[in-house]
Amino acid sequence: MKYRFARRMSCIPPSFLGELFRVSSQRGVISFAGGLPGSAHIDVRGLAEAARQVFEDEGRSSLQYSTTDGHLPLREYIAARYRQRLGLPATADEIQIVNGSQQCLDLVAKILVNPGDHIGMERPGYLGAIEAFSLYEPVIHAVPLTDSGPDLSSFAALVREHPVRFFYGIPNSQNPSGRTYSEEYRKALAGILDGTGTLFYEDDAFGELFFDGRPRLPLKRFLPDQTVMSGSFSKIVAPGMRIGWIYAPQPVLAQFNCAKQAADLHSNFLSQVILHRYLATHDLDSHVRNVSRIYGEHCRLMCELLDDLMPEGMTHTTPEGGMFLMCTLPPGLSSMEVFREGVREGVAVLPGVPFFVDGGGEDTIRLNFSTAEGEAIREGLDRLARVIRKLA
Amino acid sequence: MKYRFARRMSCIPPSFLGELFRVSSQRGVISFAGGLPGSAHIDVRGLAEAARQVFEDEGRSSLQYSTTDGHLPLREYIAARYRQRLGLPATADEIQIVNGSQQCLDLVAKILVNPGDHIGMERPGYLGAIEAFSLYEPVIHAVPLTDSGPDLSSFAALVREHPVRFFYGIPNSQNPSGRTYSEEYRKALAGILDGTGTLFYEDDAFGELFFDGRPRLPLKRFLPDQTVMSGSFSKIVAPGMRIGWIYAPQPVLAQFNCAKQAADLHSNFLSQVILHRYLATHDLDSHVRNVSRIYGEHCRLMCELLDDLMPEGMTHTTPEGGMFLMCTLPPGLSSMEVFREGVREGVAVLPGVPFFVDGGGEDTIRLNFSTAEGEAIREGLDRLARVIRKLA
Repeated sequence: MKYRFARRMSCIPPSFLGELFRVSSQRGVISFAGGLPGSAHIDVRGLAEAARQVFEDEGRSSLQYSTTDGHLPLREYIAARYRQRLGLPATADEIQIVNGSQQCLDLVAKILVNPGDHIGMERPGYLGAIEAFSLYEPVIHAVPLTDSGPDLSSFAALVREHPVRFFYGIPNSQNPSGRTYSEEYRKALAGILDGTGTLFYEDDAFGELFFDGRPRLPLKRFLPDQTVMSGSFSKIVAPGMRIGWIYAPQPVLAQFNCAKQAADLHSNFLSQVILHRYLATHDLDSHVRNVSRIYGEHCRLMCELLDDLMPEGMTHTTPEGGMFLMCTLPPGLSSMEVFREGVREGVAVLPGVPFFVDGGGEDTIRLNFSTAEGEAIREGLDRLARVIRKLA
Repeated sequence: MKYRFARRMSCIPPSFLGELFRVSSQRGVISFAGGLPGSAHIDVRGLAEAARQVFEDEGRSSLQYSTTDGHLPLREYIAARYRQRLGLPATADEIQIVNGSQQCLDLVAKILVNPGDHIGMERPGYLGAIEAFSLYEPVIHAVPLTDSGPDLSSFAALVREHPVRFFYGIPNSQNPSGRTYSEEYRKALAGILDGTGTLFYEDDAFGELFFDGRPRLPLKRFLPDQTVMSGSFSKIVAPGMRIGWIYAPQPVLAQFNCAKQAADLHSNFLSQVILHRYLATHDLDSHVRNVSRIYGEHCRLMCELLDDLMPEGMTHTTPEGGMFLMCTLPPGLSSMEVFREGVREGVAVLPGVPFFVDGGGEDTIRLNFSTAEGEAIREGLDRLARVIRKLA
């Protein structure tokens, strides 16, 4: 049989991730290519105990169907944390649970985007978002990301010139660049959007992971009714449970709920109940502080080594948090060559190309600092330096 | 702000399910309206022990990110079960894990359907499928479902007259009607589709729940390369884990994988590992036999009581398995009236209307027999009989 697929399937960019996973898991390869939080920092014992209690006290109900919006106590926990950490007036009614914040990317585009509609994102922008959005056949505009946030004049021009449905950004420790928007830029972006028909989609996957432990004010503070926020427990508790959430104005949430119900009825309820039990009986703040401190040490070491080992002309961002930094290669070098030669030398990096939705990025690579520990970072960057010097 | 949503959001029919859940949970209401498997038959202790072992042996890896296609040992288990139960030559490569088979509805439509494309389904048809498909803006053709399967001449005419992307059906104990296709009809449907560009989408959510414990040959046996099959552990182990799967030809699966990755990266990995551990250490056959036997007793009791208590002119289907049967009301009665008056009398039924994608069904109600036990069934049907007699 000749299978015919929907037009939207030809819009999805070829994915690097499959190849990456294969490469990352080859023996002897030190990988800076992945996006996993450090396995060592998952509190297996704490989650096991929470699971034991849940099976004992409320196993039967946790294993049954549940409501689309998600486990109410978990939504209340998330809302309370927004109020305490970020001064946002969140209530459980404004929050719904999803399968990791990746599902928000799919569903937000689903409820907002007709084929041919305009949306905006950062350049470089998160690969998973490009993949999810592309299936809804939008025109994606990429606004250059500076060290302080999206370039303000390009951003203003975009919003002025096109009826942009939403602008998607990661203000805290962006993936792939590791950059964090300044407070001044957050206010300026909110000011530009205020009163327009454009939503800001604020992906806050990394906001808990600032090395200095100090939260940054979300854009939603400056533009509450026009901002859709998403968050996730993947980076701060455990990704395998696939639990994230959306925090959005009521009219948006009502449509989101319809789309979520049609997509999969509700997220894994057992894990929602276990996760809530875990959060209710453990000190997340202290856990997150500890993880952030360790990632911060990795990041500082990586930055120092990059400065020491790499040839002139190679630069890198200097993250304040998160799990990634981005390097610009010396002129003339191709990231795909660095990727391929790197694997031969036993080090995997992620070429920046797929993060540039409108082409470019051949001279960039993304490095992850959440998984490899000190010695592996040293050895991996030694190998990478050899590769770069060889190719330069 | 005035929020604008994508055109597809106006295609989704208004959902009854939210109201239903509220009604079903009112004190004193005996509900035949829901679609939950019986909570009493969830093996909480067995799953708790499996979870304990997983946290001890492989907790760290089960809590990390994983691959989009799903846990390999679980996919191997599913493939082996297809080979043993149904004689299908399934391999793990042809199977991917999703968030309950509802997610297949979303993703199959996503990869196959452009706005305006033709698809087919049964009349009445599964409400969750109507909701999921509608968001891709297809033209949905409904083929009348007889006691033996979809009306063959209407089915043949549909496939002949339109380039139908797929026909969606539930051959085993259909939701909402409780009907099972005859083997003759399965062969005939396969024969009509063979060589056309139309796929058969075989939803097998209830195939394990035949009261006589005897599996029926799937349509996929007669049309292997043109059939996409979905299955679920929701009805036979536990719905709260949201674990289902798709079993499809390679080219379809490759596109499905892209869409799944964009939708949510992968399904809850912890639950996949726990579920596999449970299946590897427990006798699913014996569990399923037991549950099917109990559902069969409920169903027979319900059919007997319907025959005894209801006024002339009211008819019902006689399921061989599954969790639902469908009644046709005496002439002149409206299912919405029966629903509303029923709630006042303390019994909830599901009006058939939302299962009829092209209108109609006002004279039908769906009754669930998996949740209420003997005495509740008697009392609930007594109340329903009072309602019907009062309105007739």
